[in-house]
Amino acid sequence: MRDRAHLPRRAASLAVAAFACGLAATLAAAQPLPSWNDGPAKRAIVRFVTDATTPGTPSFVPPAERIAVFDNDGTLWPEQPMYVQLAFALDRVRALAPQHPDWKERQPFKAALEGDAKALAESGERGLLELVMATHAGMTSDAFARVVRDWMRTARHPTIGRPYTELAYVPMRELLDYLRANGFATWIVSGGGVEFLRVFAEELYGVPPEQVIGSGIKARYEVRDGGPVIVRLPEIDFIDDKAGKPVGIHKFIGRRPIAAFGNSDGDVEMLEWTTTAPGPRLGVLVHHDDAGREFAYDRASPFGKLDRGLDEARTRRWVVVSIGNDWRTVYAPAR
Amino acid sequence: MRDRAHLPRRAASLAVAAFACGLAATLAAAQPLPSWNDGPAKRAIVRFVTDATTPGTPSFVPPAERIAVFDNDGTLWPEQPMYVQLAFALDRVRALAPQHPDWKERQPFKAALEGDAKALAESGERGLLELVMATHAGMTSDAFARVVRDWMRTARHPTIGRPYTELAYVPMRELLDYLRANGFATWIVSGGGVEFLRVFAEELYGVPPEQVIGSGIKARYEVRDGGPVIVRLPEIDFIDDKAGKPVGIHKFIGRRPIAAFGNSDGDVEMLEWTTTAPGPRLGVLVHHDDAGREFAYDRASPFGKLDRGLDEARTRRWVVVSIGNDWRTVYAPAR
Repeated sequence: MRDRAHLPRRAASLAVAAFACGLAATLAAAQPLPSWNDGPAKRAIVRFVTDATTPGTPSFVPPAERIAVFDNDGTLWPEQPMYVQLAFALDRVRALAPQHPDWKERQPFKAALEGDAKALAESGERGLLELVMATHAGMTSDAFARVVRDWMRTARHPTIGRPYTELAYVPMRELLDYLRANGFATWIVSGGGVEFLRVFAEELYGVPPEQVIGSGIKARYEVRDGGPVIVRLPEIDFIDDKAGKPVGIHKFIGRRPIAAFGNSDGDVEMLEWTTTAPGPRLGVLVHHDDAGREFAYDRASPFGKLDRGLDEARTRRWVVVSIGNDWRTVYAPAR
Repeated sequence: MRDRAHLPRRAASLAVAAFACGLAATLAAAQPLPSWNDGPAKRAIVRFVTDATTPGTPSFVPPAERIAVFDNDGTLWPEQPMYVQLAFALDRVRALAPQHPDWKERQPFKAALEGDAKALAESGERGLLELVMATHAGMTSDAFARVVRDWMRTARHPTIGRPYTELAYVPMRELLDYLRANGFATWIVSGGGVEFLRVFAEELYGVPPEQVIGSGIKARYEVRDGGPVIVRLPEIDFIDDKAGKPVGIHKFIGRRPIAAFGNSDGDVEMLEWTTTAPGPRLGVLVHHDDAGREFAYDRASPFGKLDRGLDEARTRRWVVVSIGNDWRTVYAPAR
C-alpha cells in the first residue's frame, strides 16, 4: 500500500498522460493526406473528420462511435483485370491439378487450367463457386492461412507485374492512418473471403484480423491428434456483398458506421446504411478514371461495376473520388 | 507548416505521452482484484497477466495478441433459476399475448403464459426455439434493442429481487477491468443472443458491441419509408455454444485467445481451443458452490451444467474458481 498523500500527484500524472495521448494524435493529423490533391474530395473528407472530432460542437462524435468501413477490392487495392482472390483460386487449381487428374476434362477446372476466360465466364456463378470450394475448403484454417501467405509472397499482378502486397493504394492507406489518428476504428467490409483478407490486412492496411468482415464458408471445430483445429467446410456461410454488407456490419460491429468507402455498386447499400442517419456522415466512392496510372472502368465493367452508385452519389451527396484528379500518387514506389 | 526545429521537442512529447500512457495502466493495475481473496485462483490469474505483460521475457505477449474471452451466463452474471434471456422471452410472451389469442391454447405459449415449468420443459428444444422466434424475430434490430432496453429497466431477478443490471459479479467486473488495464481486449462469447447482450454489455461489463459474440438469427436489409432497417428473421444463423464457441471466436476475432473464462460444459471447447497452444495461456472455470450468497450447482444442473469441465480442469490445469472461497463479495451493494 502506497501513501495516500501521493494520490494528487498520481491524478496529475494521469491528466498529463491524457493530454499527451491526445497531443500525439493531433501531431499525426497535422498534415493529413499528402498524396491527395487539394480538391473537393480531400476537402470533404477533412471537413467531415474535423466536424466529428471537434469537442463541444453539435457534430462531435464520441470516439467509440467513430466507425469507418472500407470495401477492399477496387477501394484499397486494384480489382482489374480480375479480383486478386480469383487469381489466387486459379493458381491454386494449377497447383492442385496433379492430385485431381479428372480436372483436365471437367469444367470449370478445365477452363481454369487452360486459362480459357470465355469458358470460365460461361460456367457462371455456380462454376466460380465450385472453384472456390475446391481451393478454399477441405483444410484447416491454419493450413489455408499458410497457403495464402505463401502465395502472396510470390504472386505478381498480371499487368502491373508487382507483388500484390505493394499495391495498396497509397492515398487510401493514408486515409486509414488519418482516420485512426483521429480516433476512428477502421473496418474492412469486403465481398471477398474473410480468411483470405485477414492474412494480409494488417500488413497492407494496418487493419487487425478482428476488424475484417467478409464473405465466408462454414467451419467445424475438431480435435485431431495434434490438438484442436478449425476445419473449413465446402458450404457458403455468408455473402458479404450488396445488401449483405449492412447485414455483415450489423452482425460483426453492432453499431452503425459514420463513414463508408467503396467503389462499386456492391457498396451502395453499405453507403446508404451509413449515410442515412443523423449526425456527421460520410459516403465516398472511388471512381477508376485513370487508365494511365491505374485502370478506367465503371458502368460496364464485369468486375467492380459502378453504375447505380454514380447516379445515387449525386442525389445522396456522396463524395466521388476521381483517381485521375484527386490522387497525387497511386502506388508506393517499387521496393 | 511548423518550424523543423520543433521536431525534437515533438519527439520528446511523444516519448512522454507513451510513458505516461503506460504509467496510467500500471497505476490501475497496482492493487488488482480487491474483491478476490488471496488464494490459488487469484494468484494464478495475476501470475498469468504478469507473465504475458513483462517485456523482455520469453512469456511476453504483444498487446495485439492479448485476447481474453468470457462466457456470460453464470460467468459474468447469474444463470439461476433460469437464463436471464429466458425470463425476458417469457415476459415478452405475456406482453404479446393480447395480440395472439391462440397462444392461450397453444404450446409452448400456453405453458409460458401459465408459468407451467413442467410443460415448458416438455416442449423441449423445439418449443424453446418457437418461443425465442416469436419474441425475438419479426421486427427491426432497432425495435428489438428498444424492447430489451425497456425490459432491463424494469425487470427484477425472480429470487434476488434486484434489477439484472445490478447483478454483474463484482469480482468478474474487476477482472475485466484488470485485463483491459493490462492491454487485453476483453470479448464476450456467449450461447445467448448477441443482440440481446449488446444492449447492456457496455454498461454492465465495459464491453463494446463489437466485442460481443453470441448466438444469432438471420437478418435482412430493407429500405422502408423511414429509411433503411435491419429486419430480424425467424431463422437460426449461428449457435455459439460448445464446439460453436471456438468457431465463433475464429469467425469474429480471427485470432486464438490466450485466456478464456467460463463456468459450464458449454465452455469446455472454448477453454480447450484457448489453452492448447504455446505461450502463456489461462483457462478458468467459475464453480458455483455458494448457496448462501449466490447459487450452488454443477454436475446435475439443467442450466449451466458443469460436469465434464470439472474433470477436464484437473488434467488440463484449468483454474477452478470457488465462489465461496475465492470471492470476497459477489454483487455490488444495492443502489
